[in-house]
Amino acid sequence: MKNMFLILFFSALLISSTSNASNVNDFCVADLKGTNSPSGSNCKPADTVTANDFVFTFQPANTSNPIKTGISTAFLKDFPALNGLDISAVRVVIDKDGFIPLHSHPHATELIIVVEGQITAGFMAATKAYVTKTLKPGDLMVIPPGQLHFLANYDQRRATVFAAFSSSNPTVHSFNNIFANNVPSNVLAQTTFLDVAQVKKLKARFGGRN
Amino acid sequence: MKNMFLILFFSALLISSTSNASNVNDFCVADLKGTNSPSGSNCKPADTVTANDFVFTFQPANTSNPIKTGISTAFLKDFPALNGLDISAVRVVIDKDGFIPLHSHPHATELIIVVEGQITAGFMAATKAYVTKTLKPGDLMVIPPGQLHFLANYDQRRATVFAAFSSSNPTVHSFNNIFANNVPSNVLAQTTFLDVAQVKKLKARFGGRN
Amino acid sequence: MKNMFLILFFSALLISSTSNASNVNDFCVADLKGTNSPSGSNCKPADTVTANDFVFTFQPANTSNPIKTGISTAFLKDFPALNGLDISAVRVVIDKDGFIPLHSHPHATELIIVVEGQITAGFMAATKAYVTKTLKPGDLMVIPPGQLHFLANYDQRRATVFAAFSSSNPTVHSFNNIFANNVPSNVLAQTTFLDVAQVKKLKARFGGRN
Amino acid sequence: MKNMFLILFFSALLISSTSNASNVNDFCVADLKGTNSPSGSNCKPADTVTANDFVFTFQPANTSNPIKTGISTAFLKDFPALNGLDISAVRVVIDKDGFIPLHSHPHATELIIVVEGQITAGFMAATKAYVTKTLKPGDLMVIPPGQLHFLANYDQRRATVFAAFSSSNPTVHSFNNIFANNVPSNVLAQTTFLDVAQVKKLKARFGGRN
Amino acid sequence: MKNMFLILFFSALLISSTSNASNVNDFCVADLKGTNSPSGSNCKPADTVTANDFVFTFQPANTSNPIKTGISTAFLKDFPALNGLDISAVRVVIDKDGFIPLHSHPHATELIIVVEGQITAGFMAATKAYVTKTLKPGDLMVIPPGQLHFLANYDQRRATVFAAFSSSNPTVHSFNNIFANNVPSNVLAQTTFLDVAQVKKLKARFGGRN
Amino acid sequence: MKNMFLILFFSALLISSTSNASNVNDFCVADLKGTNSPSGSNCKPADTVTANDFVFTFQPANTSNPIKTGISTAFLKDFPALNGLDISAVRVVIDKDGFIPLHSHPHATELIIVVEGQITAGFMAATKAYVTKTLKPGDLMVIPPGQLHFLANYDQRRATVFAAFSSSNPTVHSFNNIFANNVPSNVLAQTTFLDVAQVKKLKARFGGRN
Repeated sequence: MKNMFLILFFSALLISSTSNASNVNDFCVADLKGTNSPSGSNCKPADTVTANDFVFTFQPANTSNPIKTGISTAFLKDFPALNGLDISAVRVVIDKDGFIPLHSHPHATELIIVVEGQITAGFMAATKAYVTKTLKPGDLMVIPPGQLHFLANYDQRRATVFAAFSSSNPTVHSFNNIFANNVPSNVLAQTTFLDVAQVKKLKARFGGRN
Repeated sequence: MKNMFLILFFSALLISSTSNASNVNDFCVADLKGTNSPSGSNCKPADTVTANDFVFTFQPANTSNPIKTGISTAFLKDFPALNGLDISAVRVVIDKDGFIPLHSHPHATELIIVVEGQITAGFMAATKAYVTKTLKPGDLMVIPPGQLHFLANYDQRRATVFAAFSSSNPTVHSFNNIFANNVPSNVLAQTTFLDVAQVKKLKARFGGRN
Repeated sequence: MKNMFLILFFSALLISSTSNASNVNDFCVADLKGTNSPSGSNCKPADTVTANDFVFTFQPANTSNPIKTGISTAFLKDFPALNGLDISAVRVVIDKDGFIPLHSHPHATELIIVVEGQITAGFMAATKAYVTKTLKPGDLMVIPPGQLHFLANYDQRRATVFAAFSSSNPTVHSFNNIFANNVPSNVLAQTTFLDVAQVKKLKARFGGRN
Repeated sequence: MKNMFLILFFSALLISSTSNASNVNDFCVADLKGTNSPSGSNCKPADTVTANDFVFTFQPANTSNPIKTGISTAFLKDFPALNGLDISAVRVVIDKDGFIPLHSHPHATELIIVVEGQITAGFMAATKAYVTKTLKPGDLMVIPPGQLHFLANYDQRRATVFAAFSSSNPTVHSFNNIFANNVPSNVLAQTTFLDVAQVKKLKARFGGRN
Repeated sequence: MKNMFLILFFSALLISSTSNASNVNDFCVADLKGTNSPSGSNCKPADTVTANDFVFTFQPANTSNPIKTGISTAFLKDFPALNGLDISAVRVVIDKDGFIPLHSHPHATELIIVVEGQITAGFMAATKAYVTKTLKPGDLMVIPPGQLHFLANYDQRRATVFAAFSSSNPTVHSFNNIFANNVPSNVLAQTTFLDVAQVKKLKARFGGRN
Repeated sequence: MKNMFLILFFSALLISSTSNASNVNDFCVADLKGTNSPSGSNCKPADTVTANDFVFTFQPANTSNPIKTGISTAFLKDFPALNGLDISAVRVVIDKDGFIPLHSHPHATELIIVVEGQITAGFMAATKAYVTKTLKPGDLMVIPPGQLHFLANYDQRRATVFAAFSSSNPTVHSFNNIFANNVPSNVLAQTTFLDVAQVKKLKARFGGRN
């Protein structure tokens, strides 16, 4: 009975600890059907959270595509337990001659970990500096938030990398996305210094108009 | 078809990027009718956000009032796209002899930019130090969070300034607000060192009682 | 009439300032029946907030229990005005020979203030260092976030302490909680270096199984 | 020998954990003679930190002064271990008819805990609302950041309160500080709506000029 | 003498308030010759801070250049008082046919305020959405962090805009910077989908090699 | 010459962008010999940063030890470019029957990614809940900050996992560390509910005294 007391006693203290994250709560599994706020999604009711919420399996992603790359994400939308916990991950498989086009993640650091094959990765800093390296298994590269970067496999074998992000939702800003809208081609050419013909060619490819 | 693939491919990655701000999302346009959280308002559904949400026009504000000042705000309540983005602005027109009474913004820095006329601005730091300057077009003054400050036009011409804030909702704590409630006059006099008669006079002016 | 103008004038500016906290709002009294987000609970509507929301009274807590300790909390669940304000408190009364078992608060600093009697308090840092002190009235000890700590009364008299926390919801991770679940005893013994018999004995006491 | 291994093994992992605070380190005891940054003071070298750094004793403060109040602070300048830990405290003794003048803490929540006597405390929100309450032992009041507030003892006995703050350095912005500088009296009168005579009288009292 | 007491009394409380910013201090004027930390530059000693530190004047910037644009910055490097205060500004004058090339600020929101002439501004979101608008005096556009954006003057008159940023150091990531380094042209062409000839042409223009 | 202008023009804007991280800078490679602050280490001078700073190789770690586990860290102390970027990683190789003892990271989320073999991982929440799962290659488990957790290999083959953390310095608080200090055994026994004999046995093993 004495023991039972202790359990109840501490349970009382703990009653508020089952719900959410950051400096307010322990965790906050997202209710993806609920609303968002600037700090993330609203939390599932604590009594509906189970052990399974904290475990996730990368989905297979095939590489039969123009960039010969398969990307499996473990982002907030895939793995709701990441909500408020400032982390997420991706698994990338890149076949020979495959690559991930130039892109950035404005509000997330990316930490690349190579596990198989060789990867050439690079980022362009705001200054004239740039960083390009060929990485082998056990090598890591860190990409600070907002830096444009790419990955390419110039080796003969398939390469596999994991990347971790410092945000549960590291939004992807792809370079080629500038060609996917209807900003007039001459405006885009002027403000990028690209030739108008080049802009029109890529607009045709990526779905832009005008 | 190859091109179509790329668009779909990246669209899949991007599906979670259309909703909100800070280190979790790109933006989170406030649903002003929804609920608030400590990080700001809940977000409008991503598919209801349009280009117009990101644009706002200052409303005209006339200066035919006792402080001869017209204030146009672009705060969260006016411009819901600012939600989670830690910025807002105000346009202030001050006629000759006009002024903005002493006030503070506890959780926002204010950056004053003078564009027309001359403005005398000052803030009182927590210490005995104070900062008072007469500013001309092209001059800026920064007011750290929580510092009491004022603006006054002692010049012959109308003055116009913009101020930017480091919060989407830089709440205004006006000095004279201490006279707008029903804390007993003798209590207020004691704790401010003001004379009781002065307190009663300003309570009458600003709507306080007791 | 002139005065009335000023009141209305500033009221207009202030209209958005009645709702919530951090760098977005002045305060955000929690609606405990509403949903949570990573930044805390959603706010009560501003027009339902009253002076009483900002005041709370510690509930009496008796010490007739195995640890001879009475704990009264003023956490978010008890005092909803703390939402978003990064603070909370507890009052602890410890009779002679009483104690608070080893525990930690992962996301909150604890600041202990002794007001009556004597308390022996200690925390174990991540390193081999430890801090143990006997504290008298007027003494404070600070426990950084996540450090395991305990309090014990080895004096002849009752002791009373207040503790303040740097979170509105300083979740309590009790050491003995590791014995309150159904992780198999041999697994727990292996990963803690405790003897299996010790694990089984405490599992029996704290409600664990296997 | 096996055991020795384990110790060394984990020590290696822990080598970086002895220095500082927030989400980067466990703690960061301030080197008050070193430089500051926006996140706080630089840390003492880890190998000079001892158990005593985490303990502090409030200094006695007598009440033989015009406000009949003795204030003992445990702020960063007094208790360097608070650096980066977002908490601090104060002990206030107020004799009969004593009070703490109106003031605010722009970047810190204040949580008042009454332990002896009775205290009348009040804060003025940005809006017309105000909160004034007479508090008894065991009562708490929370003052959101930047709200002007006061404490007064209208009871027959001495009162003692502790207050905790959500910052290690809750700078004090005293209302009467506006009279301690050399902003011209007519400017100050205009922007506060106070009478010039009142301004001059308080400037004389609090050391201001002009 | 009584008055002198009050001044001394509060001065004692205030001694720690003269140095720095965020939730730790009131302000922290950068010592630009000192070291940086992740939270910003170290602070100048408090006793060397003067009123002039809080005031800055935009330097004139002429528009006799290929983009017909004059940019005057008030960033941390120009205006050290902004350190830790999460704000900065820029004044931009754009002659007829001038423009600001496509660029982003990964860790800062930009709030554009048009004061003279007409400006066409646009940003490309991570998704297929884009926002392009022609803005007149009194119009504002908000650019969330990390979104690529441009400004152009297609009107007959000169245009002047101010922009405020939610960071004291809104680093500029210019689109054309990808052509200013020595990443091999074929790698850059592959990962951007640009033609190799286009890459080489712009590398020649912007100082890149290979 | 026109092109040269553009380069110089933007270089001027970019001059402040080469130094540090968070919302103030792009990156801030730690000067590990310099001082720390609550936000992390001071930055290396920008002109000494090279591409190599952003790349790191996990050091081999052998498993010939009592826990049959090899741990290779990429923490701030190993990889200074992580400073201010809120991420780090570890590679763990666990032989058959090996394990990582119970421990927590108070200020970091851990995201476990299994790449080879099978791992049984578990964490104990503040509440009676616990999460234990056997994970295969491609499986992830997220451990919220401050939750005690362990890993064990009950499979016949070697297992390899990577873990990413949401802090550049995820300090490790090992359970067995409570036996590595000189808190008296009877005090430790009382506050943990362990038997005194058990405490003495583990003190002998982990280097504690008394």
